[in-house]
Amino acid sequence: MANKKITKQTVKFDNPPSIIQTSSIVGPKEGDGPLSRYFDEILKDELWDEKSWEKAESKILRECINKVIKKSGKPFTDIDYIFAGDLLNQCLSSNFAIRETDIPFFGLYGACSTMAEALSLAAMIIDGGFANNVISAASSHFCSAEKQFRFPLELGTQRALTSQWTVTGTGATLLSSTGSGPYITHVTTGRIIDMGINDANNMGAAMAPAAADTISAHFDNTGIYPDNYDYIVTGDLGYIGLEIASDILSKAGLKVSDKLIDCGVMIFDRERQDVHAGGSGCGCSASVFNGYLYKEIITGNLKNILFVATGALMNTTSIQQGESIPSIAHAVSIRKNL
Amino acid sequence: MANKKITKQTVKFDNPPSIIQTSSIVGPKEGDGPLSRYFDEILKDELWDEKSWEKAESKILRECINKVIKKSGKPFTDIDYIFAGDLLNQCLSSNFAIRETDIPFFGLYGACSTMAEALSLAAMIIDGGFANNVISAASSHFCSAEKQFRFPLELGTQRALTSQWTVTGTGATLLSSTGSGPYITHVTTGRIIDMGINDANNMGAAMAPAAADTISAHFDNTGIYPDNYDYIVTGDLGYIGLEIASDILSKAGLKVSDKLIDCGVMIFDRERQDVHAGGSGCGCSASVFNGYLYKEIITGNLKNILFVATGALMNTTSIQQGESIPSIAHAVSIRKNL
Repeated sequence: MANKKITKQTVKFDNPPSIIQTSSIVGPKEGDGPLSRYFDEILKDELWDEKSWEKAESKILRECINKVIKKSGKPFTDIDYIFAGDLLNQCLSSNFAIRETDIPFFGLYGACSTMAEALSLAAMIIDGGFANNVISAASSHFCSAEKQFRFPLELGTQRALTSQWTVTGTGATLLSSTGSGPYITHVTTGRIIDMGINDANNMGAAMAPAAADTISAHFDNTGIYPDNYDYIVTGDLGYIGLEIASDILSKAGLKVSDKLIDCGVMIFDRERQDVHAGGSGCGCSASVFNGYLYKEIITGNLKNILFVATGALMNTTSIQQGESIPSIAHAVSIRKNL
Repeated sequence: MANKKITKQTVKFDNPPSIIQTSSIVGPKEGDGPLSRYFDEILKDELWDEKSWEKAESKILRECINKVIKKSGKPFTDIDYIFAGDLLNQCLSSNFAIRETDIPFFGLYGACSTMAEALSLAAMIIDGGFANNVISAASSHFCSAEKQFRFPLELGTQRALTSQWTVTGTGATLLSSTGSGPYITHVTTGRIIDMGINDANNMGAAMAPAAADTISAHFDNTGIYPDNYDYIVTGDLGYIGLEIASDILSKAGLKVSDKLIDCGVMIFDRERQDVHAGGSGCGCSASVFNGYLYKEIITGNLKNILFVATGALMNTTSIQQGESIPSIAHAVSIRKNL
């Protein structure tokens, strides 16, 4: 029987898996932002010697996975599984990145929630006794995403003020059954929420209710007080979505606005790098989590965070067919010490 | 520590989860095939009163999930998680199908291996103690797939003799921590194999080495003899892929050719319904597993099968960029009795 399930959406680990290493690689624009010093590698350009943006994105993810394994000092053969996903059609970036690793692979699609989805499942199969070392990873690339979801970059199309800038970046986490933290203690899995937003240039508004729903569920389910966390870090709601999520939570009686920060808000400088509503893409929360947040936890500047990556689950066809944007958010509770 | 992991790719369950119910819905062509009487519902046309093929595919998956829950007699609130995926860009079918369920959701992308990937993860999180009741599901639709991956249907483009026919169909499995079987006893997770095939009209050839790799790993890892299975059922290699996989296994010294059958071979009548190399799509192995195979196990005509769904992990961009086709296969060992 499901002894680790607390309530509908949340599980608690008997032996919380440890994050034993992370890695992150970002593009030049992200490397020029406020979190620059936290990333392992900053690319000089968006192609990294590849012939296409898709190949470049896949290379960034591949090298990021290689990097986390090398940094850990473990042989490749010690890695039991990889969970990964991205935004490209049919998760192209992940499939090509992982084909050379020889490591059993579970492909995910959670849009920009993928990093938290991957951490959730990796933690479950480690605590469940099925693996000792698992990698969770995600990627996105500004150019491959614009080409696929919006307009040819060459057109120089003006972006809406509510739109977010897809991050060129990746992050990879090596989770292990043994280690001295930081630990994943709880996972709250999202359900799909769709409040009828159908503006593909306002993803933050579409995703905010899903973030609020999962955050509420986490506190309801666990009985943990928000004060137990230094921050509740949403995936990439951006400025607009973060404000909406804060409003929804506040109206629901959950006073967490002083705890809420967002990867899409933090990764770019609002004044100097104006990207309108903030950063987005699977690689946004992946690089900010595996770069900035992990390193701040390791150094002790942060102790406990709730990492809540959010995804907008539409595609270009659904938007053309007038559909609204279903969204999801997955939450992962991370503690420096148990 | 990972006590349930046998070797690199295979886990064995302490308390094998039970398949307590399945459901399947297929399109008119599939319903006219040899497995007709095993499907729960056969559609009269490809649209099912929807305005687009994408909406129809999503409806088929939604109704299939509703059906498996209703057939089980369980309330919706008893379902802990859904694992699902499909072939549409950004897994559109699953995202829209599941948004009305209110059930925590993990989105997957494994191309046509999705049904086995979903069963693998569902079984792990049940045996791991994180859930009591989990749904695994996958869908595909001939028209939405042709439109997205190949040519507008209206062109009437001639299909290559090596090409497979994407199945319009879905299947859903309800796995539970309690039940009297059939049981999932082992899961062998695939690694990505790419032997350099770059013909998008010959997916069977691209996927065959991945199927052979996972099947070999399963027998190597478990020490189970092939004679313990009535059949090794590949996902959708079709006629060409099945023959190649059989050859590879034979050359590797694994004599299983008399055990190998394929969902893509079984779902259509080769003479009467000529679809060239057989059926394919996530919905092929999903509908054949949840329709034909499950019902044959329940009635006792089959006792033990190794279900090996296979996926080709390319997209239209990777083919245009001259890339080869990475493939993967996941194997699930299913026994009527323990």
